[in-house]
Amino acid sequence: MRQVKTLGLLGTGVIGGGWAARALHFGIDVVAADLNPQMEEWIRGAVANADGALAQLTFAPLPRKGTLSFTTDLDAMARQADFIQENIPEQLELKQRVLAGVSRQAPADVVIASSTSGLLPSDLQRDMDAPERFLVAHPFNPVYLLPLVELVGGKQTSAAALDAASAFMTYIGMHPLRVRREVPGHLTDRLQEAIWREILHMVNEGVATTGELDDAIVYGPGLRWAGMGTNLIYHLAGGETGMRHMLRQFGPCLKWPWTKLEAPELTESLIDAMVAGTQAQAAGRSIRELERLRDDYLVAIQQVLKNFNIGAGATLRALEERLYASAATAAAGVSEAAHERPLWRLETQVRPEWIDYNGHMTDSRYLQVFGDATDALFRHAGIDDAYRKSGHAMYSVEAHLTHRAEARALEPLYVTTRVLEVADKRVRLFHSLHRRRDDALLGTAEQLYVHVSGSPARASPMDGAVHARLAAVQAAHAHLPARV
Amino acid sequence: MRQVKTLGLLGTGVIGGGWAARALHFGIDVVAADLNPQMEEWIRGAVANADGALAQLTFAPLPRKGTLSFTTDLDAMARQADFIQENIPEQLELKQRVLAGVSRQAPADVVIASSTSGLLPSDLQRDMDAPERFLVAHPFNPVYLLPLVELVGGKQTSAAALDAASAFMTYIGMHPLRVRREVPGHLTDRLQEAIWREILHMVNEGVATTGELDDAIVYGPGLRWAGMGTNLIYHLAGGETGMRHMLRQFGPCLKWPWTKLEAPELTESLIDAMVAGTQAQAAGRSIRELERLRDDYLVAIQQVLKNFNIGAGATLRALEERLYASAATAAAGVSEAAHERPLWRLETQVRPEWIDYNGHMTDSRYLQVFGDATDALFRHAGIDDAYRKSGHAMYSVEAHLTHRAEARALEPLYVTTRVLEVADKRVRLFHSLHRRRDDALLGTAEQLYVHVSGSPARASPMDGAVHARLAAVQAAHAHLPARV
Repeated sequence: MRQVKTLGLLGTGVIGGGWAARALHFGIDVVAADLNPQMEEWIRGAVANADGALAQLTFAPLPRKGTLSFTTDLDAMARQADFIQENIPEQLELKQRVLAGVSRQAPADVVIASSTSGLLPSDLQRDMDAPERFLVAHPFNPVYLLPLVELVGGKQTSAAALDAASAFMTYIGMHPLRVRREVPGHLTDRLQEAIWREILHMVNEGVATTGELDDAIVYGPGLRWAGMGTNLIYHLAGGETGMRHMLRQFGPCLKWPWTKLEAPELTESLIDAMVAGTQAQAAGRSIRELERLRDDYLVAIQQVLKNFNIGAGATLRALEERLYASAATAAAGVSEAAHERPLWRLETQVRPEWIDYNGHMTDSRYLQVFGDATDALFRHAGIDDAYRKSGHAMYSVEAHLTHRAEARALEPLYVTTRVLEVADKRVRLFHSLHRRRDDALLGTAEQLYVHVSGSPARASPMDGAVHARLAAVQAAHAHLPARV
Repeated sequence: MRQVKTLGLLGTGVIGGGWAARALHFGIDVVAADLNPQMEEWIRGAVANADGALAQLTFAPLPRKGTLSFTTDLDAMARQADFIQENIPEQLELKQRVLAGVSRQAPADVVIASSTSGLLPSDLQRDMDAPERFLVAHPFNPVYLLPLVELVGGKQTSAAALDAASAFMTYIGMHPLRVRREVPGHLTDRLQEAIWREILHMVNEGVATTGELDDAIVYGPGLRWAGMGTNLIYHLAGGETGMRHMLRQFGPCLKWPWTKLEAPELTESLIDAMVAGTQAQAAGRSIRELERLRDDYLVAIQQVLKNFNIGAGATLRALEERLYASAATAAAGVSEAAHERPLWRLETQVRPEWIDYNGHMTDSRYLQVFGDATDALFRHAGIDDAYRKSGHAMYSVEAHLTHRAEARALEPLYVTTRVLEVADKRVRLFHSLHRRRDDALLGTAEQLYVHVSGSPARASPMDGAVHARLAAVQAAHAHLPARV
């Protein structure tokens, strides 16, 4: 089959627009064909809209962006394209007719693929010229960000066409999933459709609203599904004996009305297939090891979601606000003597995602940990959300960092913080990062912060109480040797 | 109801252990009761195992950790606890009998909750003393990390018990989802069970393996479900007219055999309920706005998963390796003159999750961007995976940062990099970060790197070819003014 330099699109809705954006981003030219000339403006808008997110996906060097052209002449598109992707409405006869027409124009070494969510490739290729180059390549919305694409061959599809499609999809950053048997809905949409129909039943019967049913996923199983599927997850839930235990324990529930979908009989051969499948997925990794992987990504995803304040991230953010507020309340009840402890100390730990390709904590994370220590001190001094909302802030203006030794994943660490100088408008801090195990010094930072107010922010004297608290800490540190 | 200082656990399997770890971490004492004395060692191990992940979840100040005790005397546990959580096997009569027994010992102001995955609270509370304080509080594995807990009252449950449970669950970092009607499987497990039974059918019929079916989720819909549920996701897929368009377009598919679960009739009143529900979820936000939110978290989650090299993160990692490799191949074909461009330039953009509470790019992200620029230069010089695998690396030892101006979310930026000095064992670089819009200088970094080899790493002369390439860049920069 041909090497793909130009992708032809048949139909330009949400899915066609997603294909266009993804292909262009990875250096493929796109000819989009739609009988409706108004779709040109639409698809250009869709591509522009996707570009913001695509630009963030990777900072690796990309080939020069492809160029997009539009035509209302489907045959002209078919004569120019090296690979044709069809995205027209889910109507079997319409798709058959249009695919047959396009196949008369496209040379036989041009792969033609359909984005159909659930129609069968054998039905779609029936009336085509060179039907062996046809297959289903089913993507997911947004096509420009989700890597999954299901590849399904029909009765007449050649292995060469499947291989070529797989190579092209990989080139544009996707994960081709070869579906070995034609079934309506392929694999993914059968699973999605089962959830979807159960949702419709529950809304229909007034059991729950759409929002409650979405919450039922995003705060729980949805977090797991970003990294592991139901089978591996249940293998882990089974404890040391994995899937076999799980099926023994929850097998009887398959007879219970926990969904309107009836389960198959849990025969010995089905149990064996489930156990063999999950054993293959575990690939020799123990339950403990897989649990650690699952836990690590669950933590990391919740922290990412915290930045967007949605779902489990919103829960975590609210929790942290309460924890900071109660720590502040507790501190307010303690005598000022408590502020005189010689050094502020923040306990922390190297998160697995902080590791660079050398296997060590990456250098920008040192600065992040020092920033966490600064935040803890500033919160103590009264620089909290309320203070910021009143228009004041501390800005970092200069930092001097040294790196003395490496830290490995999950290594417990602590930061000590010394207040070197407090003036009306500025604070100078000195942080040291240590390994808890042996107190080894891993790095230091000297940081200068300026107090600002207003918009645009200008240097300004800090609040009297904030100044007094920082000055009290500094006074307590004054007897320490120069840089500790 | 009582304020909760001590949580009593009835049954100590995977779920009981998860409750214990979560409660202890947030300062609640735990009395775990199990008739099997060997479970003491088990639950202590489970708590220790969970602690690693819990310690990473938040660095906000926590109350002092709770203490764990164990007893084989269920009644003694019931007399000490302020809140009792039952986690014994899913057998209705067993649960009824044990819950009734415990309810004779626990004062009437102690909430008793069951972790049942799908039994009905009205059935469970039937034989209890003070049944109004009983409810279902259904968590998800791992209980210590997933925030979701479904709260379901039975016919006799009081509003006070539900409110008290909700407050306690929130205190220990969870998201209570009030389920308004008792149905077998509550909400979440009905949805999970629909997927699970569809999986069993497909494995049973030999359509796909467990691994293929897991891939069908993790590379696609699973990424979306971490932040948004099926309903909001489909609302977005509907384009400008949302859920109503979606139902019109995919409504006919509900009659197709895309799952073994039959859908309800898509009546006007069901359509109205789906549309009203998703409108309420959108809460006035446009489709465009929600799309941007979805895209942002999809990008951020894939980047997190890249660190663990699983699912979509493994796809992204492999893609980046190919992109770097082909950029290197392309560079090898270009004359050395190309290296003499006056400054290295890296294009980047402020990701939404880089923003701090002041609304600006947080200071450690400046250093991260400078690190990205360093990496690009080092890759050009030949310091790639193969070089690192042969035991060599560049370590950052010192950095001096200045912050001149702020950057906002999605702001396009660029870094220019100058090679100040190249010696056998070290390189000194100077980076400047600029806003693309107006070339404003946002910050600078001067960084010293030392070349190391072996384990433990020791300073060593770099490879001759690497040195020559860096020296060529430095020579091209020699005519530039001191710090640009």
